[in-house]
Amino acid sequence: MTDTAPPAETLAGALIRCADAVAAELDRVIARAQPVSDRLTRAMRHAALAGGKRLRPFLVIESAALFGVPMSRALPAATALECVHCYSLAHDDLPAMDDDDLRRGQPTVHRAYDEATAILAGDALLTLAFELLAEPAADPDPAVRIALVAALARAAGGEGMVGGQMLDLAAEGRFADAGRPAPDLSGVARLQELKTGALLRHACATGALLGRASPAEAAHLHTYSHAVGRAFQIADDLLDVEGDAATVGKAVGKDSAAGKATFVELLGVEGARIELERLVEQAHAALAGFGTRATLLQEAARFIAERRN
Amino acid sequence: MTDTAPPAETLAGALIRCADAVAAELDRVIARAQPVSDRLTRAMRHAALAGGKRLRPFLVIESAALFGVPMSRALPAATALECVHCYSLAHDDLPAMDDDDLRRGQPTVHRAYDEATAILAGDALLTLAFELLAEPAADPDPAVRIALVAALARAAGGEGMVGGQMLDLAAEGRFADAGRPAPDLSGVARLQELKTGALLRHACATGALLGRASPAEAAHLHTYSHAVGRAFQIADDLLDVEGDAATVGKAVGKDSAAGKATFVELLGVEGARIELERLVEQAHAALAGFGTRATLLQEAARFIAERRN
Repeated sequence: MTDTAPPAETLAGALIRCADAVAAELDRVIARAQPVSDRLTRAMRHAALAGGKRLRPFLVIESAALFGVPMSRALPAATALECVHCYSLAHDDLPAMDDDDLRRGQPTVHRAYDEATAILAGDALLTLAFELLAEPAADPDPAVRIALVAALARAAGGEGMVGGQMLDLAAEGRFADAGRPAPDLSGVARLQELKTGALLRHACATGALLGRASPAEAAHLHTYSHAVGRAFQIADDLLDVEGDAATVGKAVGKDSAAGKATFVELLGVEGARIELERLVEQAHAALAGFGTRATLLQEAARFIAERRN
Repeated sequence: MTDTAPPAETLAGALIRCADAVAAELDRVIARAQPVSDRLTRAMRHAALAGGKRLRPFLVIESAALFGVPMSRALPAATALECVHCYSLAHDDLPAMDDDDLRRGQPTVHRAYDEATAILAGDALLTLAFELLAEPAADPDPAVRIALVAALARAAGGEGMVGGQMLDLAAEGRFADAGRPAPDLSGVARLQELKTGALLRHACATGALLGRASPAEAAHLHTYSHAVGRAFQIADDLLDVEGDAATVGKAVGKDSAAGKATFVELLGVEGARIELERLVEQAHAALAGFGTRATLLQEAARFIAERRN
């Protein structure tokens, strides 16, 4: 053993390392369905392996790393969370929902296959997420595994992400008999805290569980993840206004076309940029107590706020 | 305390008692989504509370009762399983899948609401199932709860029910690029063992886990549930041929219209009835070692084989 620290990893390098590991793990676990239906397995792969930044798994892995948990130990829980994210995209893109043809520059699952297959591939990925969390590889302690299951279910279900998706459809005026969420800052914030924020916050909560974080440490990670979730959405809104489909990899300009209130509409482009900067600083400050171990997570907050796709 | 045994409960009474308890529990747990989206909550209720025999929860509760587990202790796991069953019906009925307008004599979820709401209500019910299993009320031992999660995920996902649904769509010739399952007895049996059998077998496996069954006891319950699952499907095929929509509560004659091979087509009506009788006897014999405690489960096997809806 030597005292020499390894050279600090760059954020770009860490993101690639994490994305590669998660893709390999997704590939491996999706193959379980192969003996039953080759077509289902191919559609699950299409939904889960067509690229993507793997931000949520990265947040799981780096949050766990704050407590010395190696990537290999955090990988099953990180992969489970990515399964949930990918299922939600496959269902969100369906004709009955957002009706998108393009996702990450590729045909969406129902365009590459068909609607029934896209629905079932999404269902199978959601179910697979819980299967992965239940296995000893996710964590040696069954009590921690069950805490991971409970937290994921709350983040992903009707009280979390799926509830937020319903609010999002209501915000488009899709339901004549249901009120639209308030088109003000608190209404937009609430919708987004459920639709996209819940899984991002859950990513850091997963790292805290894997790392046996103290309540204070978990609270700091929660503050970080809350700020990052809000920054993620404001950056998304800016891309919807300013991006072009080729760079962003999906249709843009859809929010204003759908008549939805967004952070950018409510704050203005300049106001949104100021809020982004405030959130990045808040995210940095939340992790100050972790010292240099938190450098990658702090850089990730800025990356998320300033991303171009 | 007295030595006088309570009067033996009739199957009909036990089914009603169980169905009422499960409906009350579904009502209570679905309400968790209410603060987020009233419409989502109503659609989840529509999917889960429009009647139904609650056979799967009954099998959970009665399997657990073999080992002295009271209904109140088996109810959360039984309710979780019913959430999965109800989600699968809501998705199965969608226009992109079986395109059914009627279920249990009521409009299907997408007819009563809309397709997007039906997709999300299904997603939320599936997620809720795992949330319920993760809570201490499901079982005081976290290791048992995680075993319940693992078993449910395997039974419901791409290796289980969802895989069977894909095979079922393939059997209708829906996918030009995918082979159709063999239209012989082993092909039909494999499809049905996944599509409907997996959850029925899981019901009894759940009871065995809750009851700390020995490996031998669990194996007897597995034999029972395998026979009951097969009998359930043959009875379903007979109803599709012989029933009328008003009694059955859903469209009939769909299998032959879709060109799918069925047990009844392969065995003939008389052959199917003989096989049903054989399965009921097999189910009875499997539970002989449990004595009179197994009477209700044994009666249930005959009820499932002879049901008219």
